[in-house]
Amino acid sequence: MIVQRETDVYFYRPAEGHGLPHDPFNALVAPRPIGWIASQSRAGVLNLAPYSFFNAFNYSPPIIGFASNGYKDSVRNISETGEFVWNLATRPLAEAMNATSATVEHAVDEFALGGLTPTPSREVGVPRVAEAPVAMECRLSQLLQLTSADGVAISSWLVLGEVVGVHIREDLLEDGIYHTAKARPVVRGGGPSTYFEITDETRFHLTRPG
Amino acid sequence: MIVQRETDVYFYRPAEGHGLPHDPFNALVAPRPIGWIASQSRAGVLNLAPYSFFNAFNYSPPIIGFASNGYKDSVRNISETGEFVWNLATRPLAEAMNATSATVEHAVDEFALGGLTPTPSREVGVPRVAEAPVAMECRLSQLLQLTSADGVAISSWLVLGEVVGVHIREDLLEDGIYHTAKARPVVRGGGPSTYFEITDETRFHLTRPG
Repeated sequence: MIVQRETDVYFYRPAEGHGLPHDPFNALVAPRPIGWIASQSRAGVLNLAPYSFFNAFNYSPPIIGFASNGYKDSVRNISETGEFVWNLATRPLAEAMNATSATVEHAVDEFALGGLTPTPSREVGVPRVAEAPVAMECRLSQLLQLTSADGVAISSWLVLGEVVGVHIREDLLEDGIYHTAKARPVVRGGGPSTYFEITDETRFHLTRPG
Repeated sequence: MIVQRETDVYFYRPAEGHGLPHDPFNALVAPRPIGWIASQSRAGVLNLAPYSFFNAFNYSPPIIGFASNGYKDSVRNISETGEFVWNLATRPLAEAMNATSATVEHAVDEFALGGLTPTPSREVGVPRVAEAPVAMECRLSQLLQLTSADGVAISSWLVLGEVVGVHIREDLLEDGIYHTAKARPVVRGGGPSTYFEITDETRFHLTRPG
């Protein structure tokens, strides 16, 4: 295998600062799938917000989760109700998703901010985004406050949920096979406003070694 | 905002099976950044393996982490030494990265399998991949066994680490700004062997609402 060997490398210790015009951290671990999370307070106030520290964590049972910097409405709601719904952010929905990232009062329903339609879920009380072509209904499995390596608590919470229901718009299934790029998912880049769209032109295959 | 409203939707409960030719789960939460994780046993045996259930979780201090299905060598090593290194998987390194995904005996050094060069880190004892244009040295912050929503333990572990050192190949910094696509990162799609390359052609910007 031919690979390029390193030449000059910039090194920094985050605890001492990065010494660059912008912190490169979220551009280095990038792009990231978007956790577009719907939740609902015990009193019934809807919340919808995108989280870029999101991923899947287990296949069987399926577990997905996200980290929230600060004990935000989503975290409080999910801790109250034990439920949330993940919605797939796609290129046609990107502007609406972005609108739901506004910092607003607890009482504001971000579905309305994004011009989006809440539609009932099947297994949980939290609605899903009707316009999203994929959604996963989840029951809270673990809620963890993060710590530093020295064990000092950080104001950041990791919310993990078991997927109990999956919705897929049928035109995205071809002979029963889901095609990722057909939904035009968007993923989060670095900096405050960068995204990438996923297209089939950039897809490739590697055969896993035996 | 004009968005497409749903028409027909396929629904399933994972606990009852998906009813499709292939489980779509890892194609739905996709594509995912790759946690190409170097670790070392207490006895000094190197390990290098890609994990697609990987992401960043906090900015300050920077926290990154990955989930391992099964208590694999990486998890045992990191629990023993408290250290690991994340390396950026790029298109030029994709075949080498794939080679390190082989299921091999604990004594096998996957750096050698991939034709890769271990080079000393600065803050931790685990080496990084010399050929990777970005690497992050980490100290274990939390190690969590996952559970289902019913609280039943799953054979899956989440490894979180605080980033204590960052290496960036200098040609990827333009006026001190890191350009994600210039490194040609690869991300993991669904199915056993699908990846996407990230290119500037698919980048777009959204201004975050005030």
